[in-house]
Amino acid sequence: MGRVTERRRVIRLRDGVVSTRPDTLVAEEPLEIRLNGRPLAITMRTPGDDFALAAGFLVSEGVLGSADELANIVYCAGATEDGSNTYNVVDVKLAPGVPVPDITLERNVYTTSSCGLCGKASLDAVRTTARWRLDDTHAPIRITPETLTALPDRLRAAQRVFDRTGGLHAAALFTPEGELLDVREDVGRHNAVDKLVGRAVQQGLLPLSGAVLLVSGRASFELAQKAVMAGIPVLAAVSAPSSLAVDLADEAGLTLVGFLRGTSMNVYAGEHRLALPTAVGGA
Amino acid sequence: MGRVTERRRVIRLRDGVVSTRPDTLVAEEPLEIRLNGRPLAITMRTPGDDFALAAGFLVSEGVLGSADELANIVYCAGATEDGSNTYNVVDVKLAPGVPVPDITLERNVYTTSSCGLCGKASLDAVRTTARWRLDDTHAPIRITPETLTALPDRLRAAQRVFDRTGGLHAAALFTPEGELLDVREDVGRHNAVDKLVGRAVQQGLLPLSGAVLLVSGRASFELAQKAVMAGIPVLAAVSAPSSLAVDLADEAGLTLVGFLRGTSMNVYAGEHRLALPTAVGGA
Repeated sequence: MGRVTERRRVIRLRDGVVSTRPDTLVAEEPLEIRLNGRPLAITMRTPGDDFALAAGFLVSEGVLGSADELANIVYCAGATEDGSNTYNVVDVKLAPGVPVPDITLERNVYTTSSCGLCGKASLDAVRTTARWRLDDTHAPIRITPETLTALPDRLRAAQRVFDRTGGLHAAALFTPEGELLDVREDVGRHNAVDKLVGRAVQQGLLPLSGAVLLVSGRASFELAQKAVMAGIPVLAAVSAPSSLAVDLADEAGLTLVGFLRGTSMNVYAGEHRLALPTAVGGA
Repeated sequence: MGRVTERRRVIRLRDGVVSTRPDTLVAEEPLEIRLNGRPLAITMRTPGDDFALAAGFLVSEGVLGSADELANIVYCAGATEDGSNTYNVVDVKLAPGVPVPDITLERNVYTTSSCGLCGKASLDAVRTTARWRLDDTHAPIRITPETLTALPDRLRAAQRVFDRTGGLHAAALFTPEGELLDVREDVGRHNAVDKLVGRAVQQGLLPLSGAVLLVSGRASFELAQKAVMAGIPVLAAVSAPSSLAVDLADEAGLTLVGFLRGTSMNVYAGEHRLALPTAVGGA
């Protein structure tokens, strides 16, 4: 609890000069997520917002979709031999009647042995578990490039722990007008997004059909998956997307923007939500 | 096979000008790793060096330690309904007599329900499964700061795919004199290290007691774990380490360097392997 950073002694070498001083490091600890008492997954995370992390993880897995499906989330007490609480094991209890899925320990084992494992299987798994379509049937959002290019600086300004440690990934939710809704930091890029989504599901805000998700690094398949599962129509990343992230965005109708830097960006899918100038062709 | 990059259409916006052009993306596909026919883990990775990735993963998990414990590694054929090979499932067969560990599907579930989950449990798990001590009883290595500060530029120069996609993590092995031994790139930071270590175990080179591991990003607990499990005495990272990575380095005798940039670095543990100028004190 509150162990977001820790202090350690460090030897600094700067231009040939050595000094010894205390340094602030980002804290990393394992978190075991249990579902109705059964161990489900362990993730290495920065302590804090653990209930939101667990709830968001279950949204990404298709288990949770609304606040009323959630009974409660607790830290498991008495986990150590001396009965003390490490605050590293949380148990999520679903509301009565909510089906407990038969998901395996490994979060990515969603394919069956009779099915060939391939990118298409990963896409299929998202489509069959997603609760919402990003189809803009009501309240479609539309964003200007100027609004998007302003977001990375706002994310950076909102990163409090990074300034002290330089060691965190960040993710934030914005309105289509560029207003910051929430920001989370974590040693794990997936965890930062899970914490955002988990907070939202706890507050009854899913699907996040009016939100833009910005991540500080690359856009992997799993980050695109988390956006789709939370009903977020726009994912923007400061760095490059992967091929499978683009494939998922294409299939799910997700707007995917990469290399969002300065006044530039690359749009890989879902450009209909962006108020772009008319294309002039290209190479 | 050979699907390291893929081409996609992208809409580029540069200073208000829109153009449409093909773009090169880093490929991402799931890989299922089986051990003696039993599914063990799935990782999202950049295709290529899959056998090395699987072997290195098993070194990190304490299953493999030498080439003679390995019978063979094959792609599982007939994995799809039509019997075709997706090249996304590999089966590692251990040599006769090598014990098959009772490891669960989730790679991080190494704690038992009777044991409190905490950082210490993570450290204990590495200590009990590590095959080598980083104790320098023979052939201790010693590195100059000048050698270390030259490594990031050499890594960058050796990154071939990054230049085209901007989307990859990189890891490299160097000699204590700064000579590049091997470099791997992957969408997943852990995978790049697993591919390096796997190649080494296949070639009978473990423990890598004369090697320096450089990673392009942060130094997490799991990357420090992989260094220790492969017998690598020095881990250097371009960015920040986490608290638990430093704790593991302290306990295992690993030299851990972070923020290796320009002529500067922070030394978090194991400074006895570095030929540092005498400390002048500090803040």
